[in-house]
Amino acid sequence: MRKNGISAKLSTSAFLGENFLLDNQNAVELYHNFAKDLPIIDYHCHLSPEAIAVNQQFDNLSQVWLDGDHYKWRAMRINGIAEKYITGNASDVEKFKQWAATVPYTLRNPLYHWSHLELKRYFGVDQLLSAQNAQAVYTHCNELLQTPDYRVHGLLHKMGVEVICTTDNPTDDLHFHRQIEQSPIDIKVLPTFRPDNAILIEKDGFKDYIEKLGEICNLEINSYPNLLQALEQRVDYFHQHGARLSDHGLNRIYAEDFTAAEIESVFRKRLDGQSLSETEVAKFQFAVLIELGKMYHARGWVQQFHLGAQRNNNSRLLRQLGPDTGFDSIGDYSQAASLARFLDRLDTNDQLARTILYNLNPSDNEVFATMVGNFNDGSMAGKVQWGSAWWFLDQLDGMEKQINTLSNMGLVSRFVGMLTDSRSFLSYPRHEYFRRLLCNVFGQDIAKGRLPADIDWIGKIISDISYHNAKQYFNF
Amino acid sequence: MRKNGISAKLSTSAFLGENFLLDNQNAVELYHNFAKDLPIIDYHCHLSPEAIAVNQQFDNLSQVWLDGDHYKWRAMRINGIAEKYITGNASDVEKFKQWAATVPYTLRNPLYHWSHLELKRYFGVDQLLSAQNAQAVYTHCNELLQTPDYRVHGLLHKMGVEVICTTDNPTDDLHFHRQIEQSPIDIKVLPTFRPDNAILIEKDGFKDYIEKLGEICNLEINSYPNLLQALEQRVDYFHQHGARLSDHGLNRIYAEDFTAAEIESVFRKRLDGQSLSETEVAKFQFAVLIELGKMYHARGWVQQFHLGAQRNNNSRLLRQLGPDTGFDSIGDYSQAASLARFLDRLDTNDQLARTILYNLNPSDNEVFATMVGNFNDGSMAGKVQWGSAWWFLDQLDGMEKQINTLSNMGLVSRFVGMLTDSRSFLSYPRHEYFRRLLCNVFGQDIAKGRLPADIDWIGKIISDISYHNAKQYFNF
Amino acid sequence: MRKNGISAKLSTSAFLGENFLLDNQNAVELYHNFAKDLPIIDYHCHLSPEAIAVNQQFDNLSQVWLDGDHYKWRAMRINGIAEKYITGNASDVEKFKQWAATVPYTLRNPLYHWSHLELKRYFGVDQLLSAQNAQAVYTHCNELLQTPDYRVHGLLHKMGVEVICTTDNPTDDLHFHRQIEQSPIDIKVLPTFRPDNAILIEKDGFKDYIEKLGEICNLEINSYPNLLQALEQRVDYFHQHGARLSDHGLNRIYAEDFTAAEIESVFRKRLDGQSLSETEVAKFQFAVLIELGKMYHARGWVQQFHLGAQRNNNSRLLRQLGPDTGFDSIGDYSQAASLARFLDRLDTNDQLARTILYNLNPSDNEVFATMVGNFNDGSMAGKVQWGSAWWFLDQLDGMEKQINTLSNMGLVSRFVGMLTDSRSFLSYPRHEYFRRLLCNVFGQDIAKGRLPADIDWIGKIISDISYHNAKQYFNF
Repeated sequence: MRKNGISAKLSTSAFLGENFLLDNQNAVELYHNFAKDLPIIDYHCHLSPEAIAVNQQFDNLSQVWLDGDHYKWRAMRINGIAEKYITGNASDVEKFKQWAATVPYTLRNPLYHWSHLELKRYFGVDQLLSAQNAQAVYTHCNELLQTPDYRVHGLLHKMGVEVICTTDNPTDDLHFHRQIEQSPIDIKVLPTFRPDNAILIEKDGFKDYIEKLGEICNLEINSYPNLLQALEQRVDYFHQHGARLSDHGLNRIYAEDFTAAEIESVFRKRLDGQSLSETEVAKFQFAVLIELGKMYHARGWVQQFHLGAQRNNNSRLLRQLGPDTGFDSIGDYSQAASLARFLDRLDTNDQLARTILYNLNPSDNEVFATMVGNFNDGSMAGKVQWGSAWWFLDQLDGMEKQINTLSNMGLVSRFVGMLTDSRSFLSYPRHEYFRRLLCNVFGQDIAKGRLPADIDWIGKIISDISYHNAKQYFNF
Repeated sequence: MRKNGISAKLSTSAFLGENFLLDNQNAVELYHNFAKDLPIIDYHCHLSPEAIAVNQQFDNLSQVWLDGDHYKWRAMRINGIAEKYITGNASDVEKFKQWAATVPYTLRNPLYHWSHLELKRYFGVDQLLSAQNAQAVYTHCNELLQTPDYRVHGLLHKMGVEVICTTDNPTDDLHFHRQIEQSPIDIKVLPTFRPDNAILIEKDGFKDYIEKLGEICNLEINSYPNLLQALEQRVDYFHQHGARLSDHGLNRIYAEDFTAAEIESVFRKRLDGQSLSETEVAKFQFAVLIELGKMYHARGWVQQFHLGAQRNNNSRLLRQLGPDTGFDSIGDYSQAASLARFLDRLDTNDQLARTILYNLNPSDNEVFATMVGNFNDGSMAGKVQWGSAWWFLDQLDGMEKQINTLSNMGLVSRFVGMLTDSRSFLSYPRHEYFRRLLCNVFGQDIAKGRLPADIDWIGKIISDISYHNAKQYFNF
Repeated sequence: MRKNGISAKLSTSAFLGENFLLDNQNAVELYHNFAKDLPIIDYHCHLSPEAIAVNQQFDNLSQVWLDGDHYKWRAMRINGIAEKYITGNASDVEKFKQWAATVPYTLRNPLYHWSHLELKRYFGVDQLLSAQNAQAVYTHCNELLQTPDYRVHGLLHKMGVEVICTTDNPTDDLHFHRQIEQSPIDIKVLPTFRPDNAILIEKDGFKDYIEKLGEICNLEINSYPNLLQALEQRVDYFHQHGARLSDHGLNRIYAEDFTAAEIESVFRKRLDGQSLSETEVAKFQFAVLIELGKMYHARGWVQQFHLGAQRNNNSRLLRQLGPDTGFDSIGDYSQAASLARFLDRLDTNDQLARTILYNLNPSDNEVFATMVGNFNDGSMAGKVQWGSAWWFLDQLDGMEKQINTLSNMGLVSRFVGMLTDSRSFLSYPRHEYFRRLLCNVFGQDIAKGRLPADIDWIGKIISDISYHNAKQYFNF
């Protein structure tokens, strides 16, 4: 694994330099020799399967970089930019200029690192973006975007992407995934089963969703057993088309004891348009999650849970812009007791699938870090994982804290590592970013004598976390 | 902004030296060239308007430094000092000697830094305070306190204070503020509207308070609309006398849906001496806060919320000493859901005033840091702010964490920065302390290549956070 | 206190070197001159009194090092080791080899530091343990374990242990402690009263436990006053045999108001086999804790509360292996309000014993750090203490955070310091580990000018925290 003649100098550890984020020689060596050149397994993201299937070409930098990026939108609003220039009817170039003018004000926010890293890695831009050079950068990048290498496949190849797991609705017919299967692209692009709409019974639109699910299954869903039958049918369909992961986005897991009769009654009440109590909602969610969990286990899938977001806090702008536009924040839900009950319910009959738990509130870090230990039973290394720092936590501090807490309360050596969770084809430098900070954490430990200077062993662990652990865990 | 010939050396970064808290040359340069000499806007404190109005002279160091300072009292009790020497009938000099004997045991507590910084900046004392030199320090400072420069105005001028916002009860007739308006003092001293007594309906004394409020309004408050009328009258009165901020000290925000009839009924029950359920209390608090929020918005005020203290935990010493004597601590209330509902209720009709949220439990840091992002709508830069680390968090670690989390989850560049929240005229070095640590945070980032070495731009951000952002945000 | 001619060099600060964890010369000086040679007061652990009484000799390294160590078991399960090699019927040497193979994967976990430190300090092993040298290390240590110096007393003497407080059930007749009293061993070995079984009324086996308690007290416990009488009888018995501490392991404190009649009724219902509501359980727990608290106060004891564990999360493996086998994790219980009410209830009549509070969830650090300040009343230094980082938090980061938060929110100078909380006779290097990191925290502050370079005073504080504060606090 180890390369000869690494000549990296610490003097290049300047902002975005060759040794960016690498604070000492150990870190430099770990990154350049054991992490840098490994392919990327992006086992959870929100990329568009259509864009991959058609190998999309982008009109301009705004389209590929700003569209749908609620991280940037949120920063622009805090910076006092009017909505017209964010999601409104201003032109693409106007929007880009407002974003460029905002960038200098994002310093110390992950957007500042990400944005400059993305401009540099994809487009070779080596300047700090600002209102002054906005037009020039825009023109430069737009020209490149018109070349074949800057279509979607080119962007992915440039970063060494090997596997992509998109996030898909059970009602999706996966025709873009099927189209990709037929194409000559040498990247695995697999669907992920995300059945939130079938779980969140209290949401508007639940009934319509169940109807749609019935249609795609050719089944009238008028009872709870029918619902489960439909879900299992879709799980099988996803499995046929390569899915090996599921994902669930919930504020928290509910774990309210129930009987089959109760669930049947709750489900029918909802279909009849009656309103449900909180307890009824909780029982239904718990019941469905358990049944889904068994389906995943039976097929050898990995189930993921993203817990703790408090969504749609701004009703005025939700009305205007819809969900996922930058008005979600971190919740302070109680998580530990019900999460343990849920996992235990599946584990008690040995039906707990491999599982990754992600928390959004870092105050829950230690709860999650120790929770996974309760269900690692020696059947395989790292069966239940605490997932990488996510969303608001996907930054230097957040990831370092996750790595440190995981180290202290579990085995970081068995960690499956980074994912982008992104909607953008320009986000892959986040893997580089993760690997750099990971190497720096270990490198600092060596420099300070917290770890022995066994670069070969530590280098092996680095490459495991960067690539091999995920490869093995997901059987990719 | 940038000065020539800065000759500061890192060798002076010793304890309380010229470069105290400044760990590298970037930090030194940022502090001395961009922060040090800016005036102070203290937009939230508990200074006595009377003491300012009369330009109070202090008898001795105990009076100006220990009286009412429950931070010091608490430390003395932990150190085993008897109450006699804290709030009891010991003489001022005896009390000072006990405090001086305690100081060496406060090392690593903010009191250790604050105390020595205050003695040095105001009185030129360059020794570590202890039982050994207590008498000498006391005598030295007392002599200075008898000179005209050490009256209140002199103490404020010495630190470059430009604006002070005191904290005042709606029933206050503000005659000291009016007296200050008439005086030649060139410091803006503005009242802040703090209506907790009208919100906390469950507290003893609520009925008496409402009566008192009615008297000052020349109005018999026997209905909820009357209460609102009285509050609005006082808001207007405060506005006439310069108030542009309100403040609220609550363990948490309640957000329980209500009808006007319910609130009327709850209010009358309380006036009739009946007891209220928790839900009734919650509805009333929510209702009044919403109405106040609209009043603030209509007048272009800034509303502040200090959330999360658990007060009066020691009933034995509360009986002896009353509130605010050192027996409060950090609560673990659930904050996120109801806080969002409250802000949303005002925002949904575009009646959300500029708002600053302060949390006392640092486990809520990320909840608050992301909450403000939900309501920044692009109408101005940094409309909804996450306030500086407060009370128990007002120390090096607490402020660094707030700055780091704000950076990661928002735009630190738009932060309105530091306030003292203090009852003491000797607390202004806390602004210096804040500026030093702020410069150090940015300076370290430059040194480690996390930020580009663009001292001019970063210096501008430093001076914005130290002064200009507040100046602009509050329209001072 | 200060020694001459310290020649320690920073170049020895390598992994497990002489200056391990000591990052600068101040830290080196503090550790070697003020901490290293002090005896150990282990005021809370789970060592076996029998093993001490009989001066146990261990057959092999597995027996002394792996048996009952659920920290190691948990790590092995995460590493994919089958239960057979953990708690199952594999031979001792096979188990050791599986542990040795796991150790390289524990890097950055406290087990990695602890394990190598223990092998080095007790057995002189200076290699990194792995599958490769497992047999050699096993043979080497087993040979030493056959020598007289490696019986229990020798292991304790080797580390300079002066006092040990074991953790004992009220129903224990303490005959091993009595045997130790009669023996010539020059280490104080005192029992600690841990009455959880009499408090946790909702647990299976409560009725049997009460019967057993009655038997040992020669008393039929059929009423609540009888229960209290029995408990007081056992408190007295423990007191006679040297106990000066109690301990309580609870997920949280309940503080539900009650009447004597209610408690009597709840107790009888439980003895009659009826099930209890959550409120009934809470009232009973609160009532018993208050009565116990008064007993402790009357006898001048120290009461300890370990709060926040969520236990027995994995029911499948609980059935197989029983409690305390590695399936506990960190809970997110609400703690602040009820904890304050409990302490206040005792304090209000001045019946609050010296108290140490330990939290398991680090998100509660600041709640606990400030809670203790509410009840320090000046009657002695540090009467109510926030205990050292515990269990999952007993590692470098966890302990540093506890020390930093305690410093910021209290007086670290009055801290009673470290304890092992361990079941193993090889855990005493954890005191060394604590002292090193403690010295490093202070040493870094000096180096960075956060503290004055007053090595003598800071050295005194270091030795107080390492030894003298506990000595004085517990009257040992």
